[in-house]
Amino acid sequence: MSDISLMPATVSLQVLPWVPMEDLYPVVDEVLAYIASVKDIKYEVGAFETVMEGDFSVLMDIVREAVRIAWAACGQEVFAVVKIMLKPEGIGCSIA
Amino acid sequence: MSDISLMPATVSLQVLPWVPMEDLYPVVDEVLAYIASVKDIKYEVGAFETVMEGDFSVLMDIVREAVRIAWAACGQEVFAVVKIMLKPEGIGCSIA
Amino acid sequence: MSDISLMPATVSLQVLPWVPMEDLYPVVDEVLAYIASVKDIKYEVGAFETVMEGDFSVLMDIVREAVRIAWAACGQEVFAVVKIMLKPEGIGCSIA
Amino acid sequence: MSDISLMPATVSLQVLPWVPMEDLYPVVDEVLAYIASVKDIKYEVGAFETVMEGDFSVLMDIVREAVRIAWAACGQEVFAVVKIMLKPEGIGCSIA
Repeated sequence: MSDISLMPATVSLQVLPWVPMEDLYPVVDEVLAYIASVKDIKYEVGAFETVMEGDFSVLMDIVREAVRIAWAACGQEVFAVVKIMLKPEGIGCSIA
Repeated sequence: MSDISLMPATVSLQVLPWVPMEDLYPVVDEVLAYIASVKDIKYEVGAFETVMEGDFSVLMDIVREAVRIAWAACGQEVFAVVKIMLKPEGIGCSIA
Repeated sequence: MSDISLMPATVSLQVLPWVPMEDLYPVVDEVLAYIASVKDIKYEVGAFETVMEGDFSVLMDIVREAVRIAWAACGQEVFAVVKIMLKPEGIGCSIA
Repeated sequence: MSDISLMPATVSLQVLPWVPMEDLYPVVDEVLAYIASVKDIKYEVGAFETVMEGDFSVLMDIVREAVRIAWAACGQEVFAVVKIMLKPEGIGCSIA
């Protein structure tokens, strides 16, 4: 997949650990702390989803690790919604 | 549905009019201008989606009208993704 | 909105009542029973979402009522993901 | 990430290559042909999304490759929506 490894993309991630609503935020906070620790990506936290910009492959690795972290933090099912915009020309949905 | 008409909710809307990427933003801007014109809702524009907080029924009417506006502005297919968090206790995903 | 009231659309709905996983299906089953009871729409139940075809306005009313039913059945927060494809020419994502 | 590599999951993928609606299906068909060629996953094609069941890491690799294939087939932007249900106990949203 070397031809896509440097493809610009915008990827959003919403992680919903399957725990009571009052226990949700500590788990989500661990995921956000992880995303904040990643170098070389631009990101923006919203009410439902965190949007990231960077290389497609890097962002997909982050999504995978973020879901793993949510699971490790709660030990329950984790539901997630991911949106991907692959931008070969670099234009399209972007963080303001 | 009177029992749900004053139910607090957070609703996000991503509207993707089926037009070339360079024609996308004028259509999206019409949708955003409409949302900005609505009274009594709190909203936040993100890279992919606009998140709104208010009464569930009001927000669903806004989603419907926003999709209609996108269609009227482009005359093409319109794809949209909507996320809903119904919050009977008022807690849950919220605009910061 | 009379100009859009007979617009063909495909709309999917995923309803996730915020209850333990073992309590999820009775709530989802009430939602599905409601959808099954609606006249004049075509629908298909999938692992995550139920896809419906019909008039856009009718489908949006069904989404609203389905979320209300999920809330009434569980008394908790309800998360939902809705996808909309407005098809002015009648072509686009369709039930097989 | 060895601790999550055999985690059961259900993952859905909707791929929307940014091409005129009449050019959409040849691209989507290439993606579906790829998914059909993958060994050892269970999958179901719906109107909007294809749902797959298997190991979480394997499914995430499939998502990445499927998006790459859509891009290679159309040369344009590709939008995708991915839903993930991580099921440590093996229960939750499943293909019927």
